[in-house]
Amino acid sequence: ATAIHIRRANMESVKKIDVSKFMATPITPVEKLSKTSNDMRTRMELMIMRIQADFVRALEGEENFGKKFKVDRWERKEGGGGITCVIQDGDVFEKGGVNVSIVSGMLPKEAVQQMRARGKAMSSDGELPFFAAGISCVIHPRNPYVPTIHFNYRYFELVDNDGKKMWWFGGGTDLTPYYYNQEDALHFHKTLKDACDVHDKKLYPKYKEWCDKYFTITHRNETRGIGGIFFDDIDTPSMEECFEFATTCAEAISPSYIPLVKKHKNDNYGDRERTWQLIRRGRYVEFNLVYDRGTKFGLYTPGARIESILMSLPQTARWEYMHEPDADSDEGKLLKVTRQPIDFVKLLSK
Amino acid sequence: ATAIHIRRANMESVKKIDVSKFMATPITPVEKLSKTSNDMRTRMELMIMRIQADFVRALEGEENFGKKFKVDRWERKEGGGGITCVIQDGDVFEKGGVNVSIVSGMLPKEAVQQMRARGKAMSSDGELPFFAAGISCVIHPRNPYVPTIHFNYRYFELVDNDGKKMWWFGGGTDLTPYYYNQEDALHFHKTLKDACDVHDKKLYPKYKEWCDKYFTITHRNETRGIGGIFFDDIDTPSMEECFEFATTCAEAISPSYIPLVKKHKNDNYGDRERTWQLIRRGRYVEFNLVYDRGTKFGLYTPGARIESILMSLPQTARWEYMHEPDADSDEGKLLKVTRQPIDFVKLLSK
Repeated sequence: ATAIHIRRANMESVKKIDVSKFMATPITPVEKLSKTSNDMRTRMELMIMRIQADFVRALEGEENFGKKFKVDRWERKEGGGGITCVIQDGDVFEKGGVNVSIVSGMLPKEAVQQMRARGKAMSSDGELPFFAAGISCVIHPRNPYVPTIHFNYRYFELVDNDGKKMWWFGGGTDLTPYYYNQEDALHFHKTLKDACDVHDKKLYPKYKEWCDKYFTITHRNETRGIGGIFFDDIDTPSMEECFEFATTCAEAISPSYIPLVKKHKNDNYGDRERTWQLIRRGRYVEFNLVYDRGTKFGLYTPGARIESILMSLPQTARWEYMHEPDADSDEGKLLKVTRQPIDFVKLLSK
Repeated sequence: ATAIHIRRANMESVKKIDVSKFMATPITPVEKLSKTSNDMRTRMELMIMRIQADFVRALEGEENFGKKFKVDRWERKEGGGGITCVIQDGDVFEKGGVNVSIVSGMLPKEAVQQMRARGKAMSSDGELPFFAAGISCVIHPRNPYVPTIHFNYRYFELVDNDGKKMWWFGGGTDLTPYYYNQEDALHFHKTLKDACDVHDKKLYPKYKEWCDKYFTITHRNETRGIGGIFFDDIDTPSMEECFEFATTCAEAISPSYIPLVKKHKNDNYGDRERTWQLIRRGRYVEFNLVYDRGTKFGLYTPGARIESILMSLPQTARWEYMHEPDADSDEGKLLKVTRQPIDFVKLLSK
């Protein structure tokens, strides 16, 4: 029985991995992935590679004239690398990126201090060895009636001074419409809620609130969009369950968003809607450059790939002095929603 | 003799102030300004009001169809206020603002700590009473051959816990061309150098270098433009001389810039130049939102007037993934200058 058990374990540990559908060869050599198939680093890398490929192909499927994502596989001299997929000047998607990164090395002192500041129990405040695997994405469609989507799912490992390994998951998906459409909003939030509910009914209300709080443009007293879910520093109830939760959420991205693209990509619009879209994209830039933790982490990390970090910025953005739409206009209605987030928990419990 | 002396002092202290040419009524009541005409707060407020009016009128003079600046006089409930002059959709100036602010009240703890961090010798790290009078301006012209100009001149007072009053001046003028033109660059830098040289020949080289260092977009390894002068925390050799220096620099703004507007405002250009201009404006946004001390100070100050702070952002900006012009193109030449600042000290000493 013992011999059989060992053989089975060996078989599992050299599991054959199919990388043929990925956007590029994984950053970690396939041979190494095969030998460490039970390791969370491997499982996370393979999960985000799969989500990247699925979502990129789903988006490409919406382009009317066959526009494809450009794929850049890059390596980081300090350790690891990434696969950046970018679409630009598509007829449906004006600009967008889906980026996977698998990085390791020494985490700079400033980043360690920032983590401690948000409550991580580390004994060191100097640099520490780390590993991070994540997928992040922002899609800016051309049609102002199709919302912008952003998501990010990540797994983080850190080794403290005393040799103790810490790990956690973080992530979220959120929507930034230019015009508020209740039916679309409910579809988006319900898809996320259903994904959360598979694991625990308490999660959606908690992560919905966290999302509204995180994506606030404080100096404008506005949220960036209509939220979604956001979580960070998650390490309970178990590594397995955290991974399963992140996976379920990541698998909910396409169903939450693609139907909205299909529904609105051919809606009529004119200069008025385009101008408003660009002004809201200005707000997107303000949030990302002033507040977003991931962007700041990237900009201050030596050796970071700037083009992959800033692919989140829209192709065009606009700032007009003292622009304030009429409260009763469609533009004013969107603004109202960003100033007073909608209680989707209540709406979806009906 | 004593009676005469007192009479003369009284006469001086109720000096008649002509506000008729200003863009709006000064923030401090004219009666108070008249009675405190020797006070540095008053002198600074009147100097920046004069510079604002002169520069706004000089810019308006370049508009071909009579476009004027919109003038907003605003008050801040925590103390003071400002006069914001904004031009938008002019035929020569796409967007620009010249803003005067006279503010006082309690400086937030974070701002006090930031000042200590840059070397201010304050005993407190809690909030402190302050006064600030400043003028700031960004002008984004429509023609890509006309550079963007930015300047800022300010006077700051702070009262430490022990009652000790601290004061200092700061400021600078810098240019952001979209195409590098050596003749224009030399004209601009020479005008600033001449202004500095009136006071001390050591100032231009020192403040030119400080400017290049300050206006660096670290994550791009580029400067924002071709620099100019920048100084902060200046309190020697005397308050009088610091004020005179700031005044001479402020008076050099129009002669440094208006000739470049006149020379290029009717230059021919097409889509290629416009697209490049918008990409460089994206870099401008990156600098202002990620690094600029004044913008950050504003965004984090409660009760700050956001529209006046963010008037510095261009009307339109653009981000393209992995945009890298050919090194030998005119666009590539500009980029080279931002990656290796030109030694104007040497060029101008010939």
